[in-house]
Amino acid sequence: MRDVYIIGTGQTPVGEHWHLGLRELGALAIRDALADARIERAEALYVGNMLSGCVNGQENLATLLADSAGLLPAEAWKVEAACASGGAAVRAAALAVAAGAYDLAVAVGVEKMTDGVSGTVSAGLATASDQDYEASHGFSFTALSALMMRRYMHETNWEREDFAPFAVTAHKNAAGNEHAMFRDPISAEDFNRSPVVASPISVLDAAPICDGAAAVVLCSKEVIAAHHEPVRIAASASATDTIALGARDDILTLGSAAVSASRCYDAAGLSSDDIDLFEAHDAFTIITALSLEACGFAQRGEAVRLAQDGCLEPGGRIPISTCGGLKARGHPVGASGTYQIVEATLQLRGRAGTNQVPQARRALTQSIGGHGSVAVTHILEV
Amino acid sequence: MRDVYIIGTGQTPVGEHWHLGLRELGALAIRDALADARIERAEALYVGNMLSGCVNGQENLATLLADSAGLLPAEAWKVEAACASGGAAVRAAALAVAAGAYDLAVAVGVEKMTDGVSGTVSAGLATASDQDYEASHGFSFTALSALMMRRYMHETNWEREDFAPFAVTAHKNAAGNEHAMFRDPISAEDFNRSPVVASPISVLDAAPICDGAAAVVLCSKEVIAAHHEPVRIAASASATDTIALGARDDILTLGSAAVSASRCYDAAGLSSDDIDLFEAHDAFTIITALSLEACGFAQRGEAVRLAQDGCLEPGGRIPISTCGGLKARGHPVGASGTYQIVEATLQLRGRAGTNQVPQARRALTQSIGGHGSVAVTHILEV
Repeated sequence: MRDVYIIGTGQTPVGEHWHLGLRELGALAIRDALADARIERAEALYVGNMLSGCVNGQENLATLLADSAGLLPAEAWKVEAACASGGAAVRAAALAVAAGAYDLAVAVGVEKMTDGVSGTVSAGLATASDQDYEASHGFSFTALSALMMRRYMHETNWEREDFAPFAVTAHKNAAGNEHAMFRDPISAEDFNRSPVVASPISVLDAAPICDGAAAVVLCSKEVIAAHHEPVRIAASASATDTIALGARDDILTLGSAAVSASRCYDAAGLSSDDIDLFEAHDAFTIITALSLEACGFAQRGEAVRLAQDGCLEPGGRIPISTCGGLKARGHPVGASGTYQIVEATLQLRGRAGTNQVPQARRALTQSIGGHGSVAVTHILEV
Repeated sequence: MRDVYIIGTGQTPVGEHWHLGLRELGALAIRDALADARIERAEALYVGNMLSGCVNGQENLATLLADSAGLLPAEAWKVEAACASGGAAVRAAALAVAAGAYDLAVAVGVEKMTDGVSGTVSAGLATASDQDYEASHGFSFTALSALMMRRYMHETNWEREDFAPFAVTAHKNAAGNEHAMFRDPISAEDFNRSPVVASPISVLDAAPICDGAAAVVLCSKEVIAAHHEPVRIAASASATDTIALGARDDILTLGSAAVSASRCYDAAGLSSDDIDLFEAHDAFTIITALSLEACGFAQRGEAVRLAQDGCLEPGGRIPISTCGGLKARGHPVGASGTYQIVEATLQLRGRAGTNQVPQARRALTQSIGGHGSVAVTHILEV
């Protein structure tokens, strides 16, 4: 496999973009990434998106974006892996460059959730679970996550209030990110008092519904120019687990996250000790905890202690979601995995502004879909 | 790039599978392909599908199929390129093997259209066009194709009745394919009298709504064993054109089809003269004609003459859709591109039964999405 590098990043602010549709959001991020790489065009575009069929009535989405971004007649297809779609699109682009099919490729993640009329988005998100045995019986995505959190609390004796630092840190980090949706800090008390969605999950355990797009330009070694600040994809892996939560022996092990992280560590010859920052899939506080454990940053049941001890804050042992994460930067689902790669790249380039992790050399990013039924993990390195 | 070979094919019959869902259809084709290759499992699965979000309420589809086919914790994601999704999934798998990420990968195309309640499937198919400027104004997919056919008739002076041989040949070919949906022959008179859907397109110009799944096992050279009958992917390419029909200078040029075919010919060092059979995207008779012209088998406006002269029948100059094509084998949209690859592979292995093209050595397959807004083209070779 050829080495693959990131030489351009682009992103729109995350928020409620009532005046922009999928075509505009995607094109803005793509053109932003190409401009950052000082490149006019690319011959291949891989689009991460989950909900354009359900919510926006738009499939053939990759063609739409190749068209709106001025990339015709580029190769273009959409990659869907539920909420891990953005990570999977980056992996698809990386495989195309690694194979030698292209020297330059663009991956973009885009989601426009605010187009959804009442109930459409919740129903759309539930399509990440098993439609026959979960969603059609009335389980929402949040309700299934709540079962995991309840079980975690039962096994570990952590209380819901103990999860507060995950959300508090995410909002604190987002304050320094001009593209983040929620830039106001929250307190532990805010967290504790926030309205329950599906007990024990409250509003402030959960990432918001929103719109956004993020893109990266990938290339082979030959394309790198003096003005680029290349970040190498040191490892990339994807894995799956049962789609239905009830089919697992243990709902507190994110198998897909553990397997894909382990494959990345093996491929790069690294361990969790070598990682300087972790862009985690913090869609719910419970998922943050479980993914920290799956990636080897904490023993089973101990991730909450990392949060309690301040290890996840900038300057801590393993800073997570340094630009606000899904929780506070926002979670336009099919775009989030690409935002993670953009943010990790900015960190490794030393361009993360007030959120900069000093001397960051290696970042782990992990994009999770379903209830850990699919995960895409990358290690980036400078 | 490493060479990539097909060593296993699987397919379900195409039809109305009221007793089977996406999980069963997909798993049946995958297990069938693995059995054909005499292989127990694969580490990567790429799923071509267009409508699972809109029609079946199921995203995260690739995880569902990895799960139901017993492939966990394989890498798995869905690839969507409208009706070209099946071809794009094969291309994704080929890129993964070419890159060296895997020595073995499975591509499956699956579609379950009969789950759709009234209007859902037509609305779903229209998501392949421009939602903002076409579909939301009431254009159905068939209506847009009808505009192309009307223009073709206007420019060439061919009458609608002149298109009959496309449909008649497809049904004749399907009679020899036990997996085909329509195995009864039709006459030119049947074609001429069939009810109009969107003038000039009638029922017998159009492929049916149906269910089905087809899969192929791809591998690198190292994996090929003595019992395999490998077929090499000599070339693979994908390209796009404007998503909206009205944005094109010329609606009778399928730009994506022409560009992707040209890239394939260049990569393989071949021309249309070297192709022994063509699995065409015959969703509508007009699309068959335009794709024949885009791939260099006929001059502009002359593809209908090929049909009239019998050149497209088995034994003719360039046999097309030898197993019945989208028209008569059936068109489970996201699966059709994979069916094409399966059928071309069977031909090149000399296992196409009564449909066998004598001495077939090279096949062109072309999967088209939208109104030629995206195309995925392959050349297979023995």
